[in-house]
Amino acid sequence: MSTPLIGVLGGMGPLATVDLLHKIVEETPASRDQDHVPVVVWNVPQIPDRQQALAGNGESPLPTLLHAIRQLNRLSVSHIVVPCNTAHHWFDAFAEVSPAPLVHIADATLYALTQADEAKASPRKIGLIATHGTLNAGWYQQRFAAQLGAETVVPNEQEMTTLFVPGCYAVKRGELQHGGRLLEQLAAQLVERGAERLVLACTEVPPALEAVSSRWRDISIDPTRALAQACVRLWLQR
Amino acid sequence: MSTPLIGVLGGMGPLATVDLLHKIVEETPASRDQDHVPVVVWNVPQIPDRQQALAGNGESPLPTLLHAIRQLNRLSVSHIVVPCNTAHHWFDAFAEVSPAPLVHIADATLYALTQADEAKASPRKIGLIATHGTLNAGWYQQRFAAQLGAETVVPNEQEMTTLFVPGCYAVKRGELQHGGRLLEQLAAQLVERGAERLVLACTEVPPALEAVSSRWRDISIDPTRALAQACVRLWLQR
Repeated sequence: MSTPLIGVLGGMGPLATVDLLHKIVEETPASRDQDHVPVVVWNVPQIPDRQQALAGNGESPLPTLLHAIRQLNRLSVSHIVVPCNTAHHWFDAFAEVSPAPLVHIADATLYALTQADEAKASPRKIGLIATHGTLNAGWYQQRFAAQLGAETVVPNEQEMTTLFVPGCYAVKRGELQHGGRLLEQLAAQLVERGAERLVLACTEVPPALEAVSSRWRDISIDPTRALAQACVRLWLQR
Repeated sequence: MSTPLIGVLGGMGPLATVDLLHKIVEETPASRDQDHVPVVVWNVPQIPDRQQALAGNGESPLPTLLHAIRQLNRLSVSHIVVPCNTAHHWFDAFAEVSPAPLVHIADATLYALTQADEAKASPRKIGLIATHGTLNAGWYQQRFAAQLGAETVVPNEQEMTTLFVPGCYAVKRGELQHGGRLLEQLAAQLVERGAERLVLACTEVPPALEAVSSRWRDISIDPTRALAQACVRLWLQR
């Protein structure tokens, strides 16, 4: 295999992309610049809103996303990752046009969950914080059930409207504290309903919980960090 | 003018590149993803060491850097920025092969210095924290003298050996606290010798001073942030 060159299809939102890049640096065992993972990033946020498109209220982001996939491939990337859970709705369409294979964020997360719980009993209930698009797609729920035998606890419609959606858009506006407080409340509700672990499956959520030093970070799996770890594994396997 | 698309020639080091991207997001007035600056990033750190090459102890990074400039231009970037002061040694060679114009980090810094001191008296002495390569090149000293009539206070050889170089390489290894303590001491020495402002002209320095919550941040100008602000101006002028 030739040297890896990770392509990042970013911009959804731009801060989530920066967060992935930061976590790739953090997760890499390195003693000098040259040890770090080579990455090319398409961080162009002029993409129609994914949540609105999936709700039937807006233009499809697919043509713009396929353009980005093609641009990354022009630079001969070896793999592509997408630091946006919701955008995985179009994962099969990306894979169809991309010579470089794509790493699915839910596969990376399952790997991280398995590693985290290796020594302990596997969780019976996992809380999932995600957009409507991701929740409806069922990627995480299916994997939790099939691979871990675990049940998924999801936010109800009222929690989505009053906590998740405003929290997520607050982060996109740069209001991390405000967003963090709303998402912290949502995390508490899922734990209240029995979640032993939380999967923060929207890339806006981990930076927001970090900003408010949330107590739930200890039981949380951050798919962005899991995706970063997957990139580092590809680099170290070269 | 067509829509800007900022190309970032990164990887020197990878954390400095992430820092620039983060500052671009922070400096952008945005209420949604689509308001943010479109950026393409070549963050491939497999580049021969710049400091060693300039000291005559290693391979030239120029061929690798020119390849990166060409790759960014293949994606039709409108401008290119380089979040590494030392790499500006090869600025003219980049400009020669690049259809997209390059923003010089010292020009962006001068603009930021002028803005910061608009209301106040211009500083008479400016401390400059930078690599040997940047210090010897004289970009900053010349601009301070010519445009601000200010004298530059630079580290002496002993301070370079015992504080700057080990501090800078500690950051590259991810040891921000350790690096921050060394660079904090260097900042104190320059202030002791009369510097009224500090220009942190090595992209490893601002994250390190941030990590130790340095008291000198108030009088410091961060060329990485200045470069981020230049990118945001290009985007807002569209």
